[in-house]
Amino acid sequence: MSENLVSETTFADRHIGARREADVAHMLKTIGYDSVDGLVDTAVPESIRQQNALVLQPALSEVDVLKKLRELASKNKTAVQLIGQGYYDTVTPPVIRRNILEDPAWYTAYTPYQPEISQGRLEALLNFQTMVSDLTALPIANASLLDEATAVAEAVLLMRRSNKKLESGVIVLDADVLPQTISVVKGRAEALGFDVVVVDLATNGLPEGDICGIVLQQPGVSGTVHDHAALITEAKERGAMVTVAADLLALTLIVPPGEQGADIAVGSAQRFGVPLFFGGPHAAYMAVRNGLERSLPGRLVGVSKDDAGTPAYRLALQTREQHIRREKATSNICTAQALLAIVASMYAVYHGPEGLKWIAQRTQRHAATLAASLKAAGIEVPTENHFDTLTVKVPGRAAELLAAAEAKGLNFRPVDADTLGISFDETTTSETVALVASVFGASVVNGENNLPENLLRSSEYLTHPVFHAHRSETQMLRYLRRLSDRDLALDRTMIPLGSCTMKLNATVEMESISWPEFASIHPFAPDSQTAGWRELIEDLETELATITGYDQVSIQPNAGSQGELAGLLAIRGYHLSRGDVQRTVCLIPASAHGTNAASAVLAGMKVVVVATAPDGTIDHDDLNAKIEANAENLAAIMITYPSTHGVFDADVRQVCDAIHAAGGQVYIDGANLNALVGLAQPGQFGGDVSHLNLHKTFCIPHGGGGPGVGPVAAKAHLAPFMPGNANAESHDGAGVPISASKYGSAGVLPISWAYVKLMGGDGLTEATRSALLAANYVAASLNEFFPILYTGNGGLVAHECILDLRELTAKTGVTAEDVAKRLIDYGFHAPTLAFPVAGTLMVEPTESEDLGEIDRFIAAMISIKGEIDEIAEGKISVEDSALRLSPHTANAVVNDSWDRKYSREQAAFPLPTLRVDKYFPPVGRIDGANGDRNLICSCPPPEAFEN
Amino acid sequence: MSENLVSETTFADRHIGARREADVAHMLKTIGYDSVDGLVDTAVPESIRQQNALVLQPALSEVDVLKKLRELASKNKTAVQLIGQGYYDTVTPPVIRRNILEDPAWYTAYTPYQPEISQGRLEALLNFQTMVSDLTALPIANASLLDEATAVAEAVLLMRRSNKKLESGVIVLDADVLPQTISVVKGRAEALGFDVVVVDLATNGLPEGDICGIVLQQPGVSGTVHDHAALITEAKERGAMVTVAADLLALTLIVPPGEQGADIAVGSAQRFGVPLFFGGPHAAYMAVRNGLERSLPGRLVGVSKDDAGTPAYRLALQTREQHIRREKATSNICTAQALLAIVASMYAVYHGPEGLKWIAQRTQRHAATLAASLKAAGIEVPTENHFDTLTVKVPGRAAELLAAAEAKGLNFRPVDADTLGISFDETTTSETVALVASVFGASVVNGENNLPENLLRSSEYLTHPVFHAHRSETQMLRYLRRLSDRDLALDRTMIPLGSCTMKLNATVEMESISWPEFASIHPFAPDSQTAGWRELIEDLETELATITGYDQVSIQPNAGSQGELAGLLAIRGYHLSRGDVQRTVCLIPASAHGTNAASAVLAGMKVVVVATAPDGTIDHDDLNAKIEANAENLAAIMITYPSTHGVFDADVRQVCDAIHAAGGQVYIDGANLNALVGLAQPGQFGGDVSHLNLHKTFCIPHGGGGPGVGPVAAKAHLAPFMPGNANAESHDGAGVPISASKYGSAGVLPISWAYVKLMGGDGLTEATRSALLAANYVAASLNEFFPILYTGNGGLVAHECILDLRELTAKTGVTAEDVAKRLIDYGFHAPTLAFPVAGTLMVEPTESEDLGEIDRFIAAMISIKGEIDEIAEGKISVEDSALRLSPHTANAVVNDSWDRKYSREQAAFPLPTLRVDKYFPPVGRIDGANGDRNLICSCPPPEAFEN
Repeated sequence: MSENLVSETTFADRHIGARREADVAHMLKTIGYDSVDGLVDTAVPESIRQQNALVLQPALSEVDVLKKLRELASKNKTAVQLIGQGYYDTVTPPVIRRNILEDPAWYTAYTPYQPEISQGRLEALLNFQTMVSDLTALPIANASLLDEATAVAEAVLLMRRSNKKLESGVIVLDADVLPQTISVVKGRAEALGFDVVVVDLATNGLPEGDICGIVLQQPGVSGTVHDHAALITEAKERGAMVTVAADLLALTLIVPPGEQGADIAVGSAQRFGVPLFFGGPHAAYMAVRNGLERSLPGRLVGVSKDDAGTPAYRLALQTREQHIRREKATSNICTAQALLAIVASMYAVYHGPEGLKWIAQRTQRHAATLAASLKAAGIEVPTENHFDTLTVKVPGRAAELLAAAEAKGLNFRPVDADTLGISFDETTTSETVALVASVFGASVVNGENNLPENLLRSSEYLTHPVFHAHRSETQMLRYLRRLSDRDLALDRTMIPLGSCTMKLNATVEMESISWPEFASIHPFAPDSQTAGWRELIEDLETELATITGYDQVSIQPNAGSQGELAGLLAIRGYHLSRGDVQRTVCLIPASAHGTNAASAVLAGMKVVVVATAPDGTIDHDDLNAKIEANAENLAAIMITYPSTHGVFDADVRQVCDAIHAAGGQVYIDGANLNALVGLAQPGQFGGDVSHLNLHKTFCIPHGGGGPGVGPVAAKAHLAPFMPGNANAESHDGAGVPISASKYGSAGVLPISWAYVKLMGGDGLTEATRSALLAANYVAASLNEFFPILYTGNGGLVAHECILDLRELTAKTGVTAEDVAKRLIDYGFHAPTLAFPVAGTLMVEPTESEDLGEIDRFIAAMISIKGEIDEIAEGKISVEDSALRLSPHTANAVVNDSWDRKYSREQAAFPLPTLRVDKYFPPVGRIDGANGDRNLICSCPPPEAFEN
Repeated sequence: MSENLVSETTFADRHIGARREADVAHMLKTIGYDSVDGLVDTAVPESIRQQNALVLQPALSEVDVLKKLRELASKNKTAVQLIGQGYYDTVTPPVIRRNILEDPAWYTAYTPYQPEISQGRLEALLNFQTMVSDLTALPIANASLLDEATAVAEAVLLMRRSNKKLESGVIVLDADVLPQTISVVKGRAEALGFDVVVVDLATNGLPEGDICGIVLQQPGVSGTVHDHAALITEAKERGAMVTVAADLLALTLIVPPGEQGADIAVGSAQRFGVPLFFGGPHAAYMAVRNGLERSLPGRLVGVSKDDAGTPAYRLALQTREQHIRREKATSNICTAQALLAIVASMYAVYHGPEGLKWIAQRTQRHAATLAASLKAAGIEVPTENHFDTLTVKVPGRAAELLAAAEAKGLNFRPVDADTLGISFDETTTSETVALVASVFGASVVNGENNLPENLLRSSEYLTHPVFHAHRSETQMLRYLRRLSDRDLALDRTMIPLGSCTMKLNATVEMESISWPEFASIHPFAPDSQTAGWRELIEDLETELATITGYDQVSIQPNAGSQGELAGLLAIRGYHLSRGDVQRTVCLIPASAHGTNAASAVLAGMKVVVVATAPDGTIDHDDLNAKIEANAENLAAIMITYPSTHGVFDADVRQVCDAIHAAGGQVYIDGANLNALVGLAQPGQFGGDVSHLNLHKTFCIPHGGGGPGVGPVAAKAHLAPFMPGNANAESHDGAGVPISASKYGSAGVLPISWAYVKLMGGDGLTEATRSALLAANYVAASLNEFFPILYTGNGGLVAHECILDLRELTAKTGVTAEDVAKRLIDYGFHAPTLAFPVAGTLMVEPTESEDLGEIDRFIAAMISIKGEIDEIAEGKISVEDSALRLSPHTANAVVNDSWDRKYSREQAAFPLPTLRVDKYFPPVGRIDGANGDRNLICSCPPPEAFEN
């Protein structure tokens, strides 16, 4: 009997798939090693290995982690959140909470790049787009952006791109725009070197001179519902473009931006059922007028057809995406808030237009009653035309009343010494209104909704049947189940996506995010109410710094791309602080993820590409040449380590040294950190700054395409330039704010916090070793069928491997895409397709997959190789083959008039194991080009699905 | 705009499916009525209608119900539960909590009577049986019983049935048996008139005289691990049978009952991951030696084959069940604790034999350390051979130490003024042990596990691969998903089961049951810690009394059958109290559910059957004759209202009056209460006592076959005979205890409580009206295809209708079973098959199904009628038809050698709507008889599944 009285298995044993001795021995034998130590020592270059074991706080059991989380939660204080400013309390319908936010079928799904196995979440996201498009009265909406502030920043960039004629004109932000939005936009503008001015447009009108674009807020942060019609008309007459940041709930009542001539509408969908989450994650939206759709940043779901002519959804216009267009990218955003957009869309499905309007009217009426009550008590309420928010003038008494409110469990918005803001929401009750009034010594006097006629909406919205068909909970539950059943997520199969690290998202890590003490905290709640949150965040930042070998970490960036931008802006700030204003060149290896280049552009840098050597490493001669050519102007190099080729480059220290010697800074992209934790520290082998992907290495699930969290980690000299607080004057003394809220997507941080606590230093290290073991086992097992493109020391790969199909494609015509689609018939999500090398598949098993599942994948790949061989041998043509005609729906294989050159059983059950628990995709192969030619980005009518 | 500022829709609008005016109008028109009022007034006899609207506390919104539940929860106090006595704290692995206990795919499933769509839960239950069988070392185990005390009572009855030779002998219970078990067994014995004696067998040995059977406890409630070998040998030599109530966790370490010669083992699987739940629901088990399997009560999963020869699971030996054998039934149990048995089985799958053994050893070692510590401090610990529990002698100080422990957050077991019990469990830590020791002023001294060799287990257990294959959380998650995907539950389809009321189980009703302040309370915790629980229970009992028109309700019975028994025992107690000892005849209509008769037998009554009239009502002439014939001896009549024929009998008051006039009591079975709530009250139209089914009318989900809750409701004169507390001397002054714990399956009561609060009186009434509307719509729509067997006033049915297939069967050979199985191909769970009338299907849509789903069902039935017509027209023979060869698996329809007389598309897609989101059953039609002939009730080896 063991002496350990704590637990019979550690959590690491539950997290790591290959845990049985016999399994590990078999895997090692296949690779040709005796021990994991030997494998790791060969694969990971000595030169970067960390000397000591990773020491974190001791690992906790699942029970103890939950207990500690409850302690932390209890240090937060829930209150009635009336702060507003872009964040409102809301009721997540329990059926949606349990069956989306708490359901692994939804939250473990990947981004829907493989649309045939993503029809469920694509439909949900198309509902989101339809909802946004309807409410804003603009024809094309995306799904989705990271937060409202960055969405406005993206809108500004879009206006500048689209308004080339006036590109040098100023960008005008109305003074009634959310302060955190102004702060974020200014930060972006400063790096890119264009002018932004803030003007009280209602009072002063448009400024003189060339205006590229204007940004309005509806309702304004003051609560005023503006009549923007004249202003928009004037702006357009002067050639400016117009963006309106609009509240979706308000748009159920007031005239929408599209009807007033706006080019772009942006905003947050948070109050549609998504918890406050201490600031995020929430889905932001962007909708545009016709003509701008091809410039729209972010993901766009569109409708096309499959090979049987059935309407089918997929991501449209993907060629816009930065990972494909690289340095031509106009935005660096490559994640979305998919899970939250899905929640928001389902909230609209659940309530329908009448329900939403009803919620809006009730909210507005509460505000009207408060206004009447305060006015009757002689208190000045300057907000005349209001929706949910009132500005209240209390000369000299703001602080006192704020404290009085807090004592009653109410959070008001502090504006200045004389002014308070009060915002109502879905959860407001008459009791709340009375309590608020009592703070001011006022009695309740009923008020009426009395917006002027010209501000009232008359047009219909959410007329599509989907917003009318699922109103009972039973209907909603079944709709959610039906959609999720169409998809393949991590709860059914390995998702062997290179570079994406689709590992276990353990329940115990997920559970606490729904607790009210975490979920119901406003991002601008007073510090006295958020001690638990801040303790958790500081603890996580400290542990991440220890893991990466950096001195400071900020978890603010709410996506990997935002982490990159934050890191590059820190480098920029550093150079500027030293007077090195000319240091703006960023070297980027040819193999880099396209986001790197896009982020560098957004940070105001000039991208210079460094060539890749034939073995996949950086071409040192070219590197030296590029350093020399840009010696004076060198700002940074961005490298991914291990590289996007899945290989440890033994010379990385030399690369870093060379850059440092030339006065540059080293940015190490942490996308592949899963291969390093516990073995090597980017902050110690040469990096000055990195971003991490908590949604890869640290277990935040991908949620069907977000949320992501991309903390930035830096050495001490860059610390002063880390992301600042967009809601604070002078950004709390730090650098450029990256997100609207100080802690970004705080709401999902308990996931990563719990993972680190559960694993401890030893567990995390063991996970890394197991990830290396698994990847090398896949490589060794498949190499004879599909050659591994790049290897490092001893012929080993890092945590992923690239299967090179190009020779097979040349010989047989079978493409990597054919293999990816055929894998669906084998019940698998495809590996990463055509990244970083066209014609290849990149496989990353992660440490969480067990030998049985990995072998199932290997068997599928070998079986597919056999099918390719039949083509090579001339037994069947590629056009007639199951590979090209894959994936196969149930409809296809059951069809009475089967006329294919292979059998139905070969189509559906190419391996006997598939006869049990078979997954049939809901649609066959989708014609993406057709959908891009005929862009449809909102829900098609039901008749479209009739045969 | 509405003036209602509380919510735009009430919860009732979410609960009720047919809520759109147009839908209701269409349904009414089909039935031939103008208004729901008109329909209800015609359907429900005036004579029973309640005069006033149902007035309960006002309906709460979902938000307010959660708030109120949090308030109630906060009135409970969690503590370290060391009381033991059959209930132990345990860790529910989060992956199991989220993906079973909190997953509608598992909890909304029905009892697996339709095995083809129940393979997932049947596999889980077979794992349970295998686990129990392995751990007890007895070959056949069931899945499952209601609690340990009733399981012992069932074992006693089984011994009496099986030991006919010594049936008149005494039943001997060892004094170390759990006190609540002794109490329940004595109550049952008293009613049935056999002798039970309690003997300290370790001290006094077996008593003289004939012994029918003995019951031992291992370990005893004192904590002693007994060596039962000699006692069992002697008992068997004297012809007695032997039951051992054994702790499953202890059996991982100690020699199991089967190896010591026991005939029967029983016990609780609670500590295998099932929360304490303030006493229940928990799964009890029973395992028996060869030769007793056909006498085993409760559900038994067995292995058979489907029509393609694939191994397939189904309930075995169903002909034993009381609903089939009626008065020949030997047990009245017709539900199980399926959901909890599934959790327990998955706990074993997750931990495997090594993990379970490790937990057991750690628990035992903690107890050893406490024993050593207390002894070192001079405190007497009489328990020598212990597992997890120690008896501690503290002369005169028990109360004081109990209080001191409670002050430190520790709950001990009070035994008497001088004695305490302390039980450790999976959650015990070294800190707990030290804290316990400190209560006694003792310091920690390490102790060793030192059971004598002859008590140690040497045999293997849980050797089947399933207990070794799912140890990582990823594996476990996928296993759970895979199993649930094989099944059809309410989250995918209407389950139109007559008499079972498969309605919405709303998330908000379900959520609170996992909260620690509800889930982690020991049933014998001091009252000071359970105020919230008791307030909730009393409130629910009060509301149920108001709803039913009775004076008092007890929620103790943990299944409908137990509610029946409780009600009949109350009647028995009443007659006895009046000296009417001869009143033992119970009249039961021929149409009654078999459980009625079985319960009457268990209550010591004699069953006399009353004939049914041709219209489905009670035959009044026969009734009068039977009353007359049994005038002196009449104890009661048991009637179901509306009848099991789904019809309101207008004469029910007269029936009640006639019984009362003859000195009998009226028992109204509440199975069909869903047709009455708000419209009529059994306690007001003639009932003296009823049981309700909270798992039918009041939204506790069926959980794949349990938990159920069957409260008993009675008029004031029966109140003194309501279920007493099995754990209290004199049963707290009440009647015979029915369950082991005072509040039965308390853990799931928040579900029904929330439902009542959310709906309020008006909502509940509306639900009833909608249920009547839906059933009559189905009847009106299908009558021309399948005649409705019984109707009442105006040709209307109540909340369900019986489709009569007998004429079609006679004409075509197509059976009701063929239709039931063919419905699977249409994506439906079958209606109730062959109950209450063979050759029929009974359909109950409930109020929660919307018109779309009901129409989908009607369309399926009409399409099936078309298929039957083809047989009638001679186009195809019944043997060759899709009806007889249904259901169709994917394997069947994709088979390359299709040779059936109908097309593949006809097989899989008989309606075009089925082409989207098609459900394929994992197996074809199962040969039940084959499985009964070759009884296999534990997991078959994996090779069995190879083709």
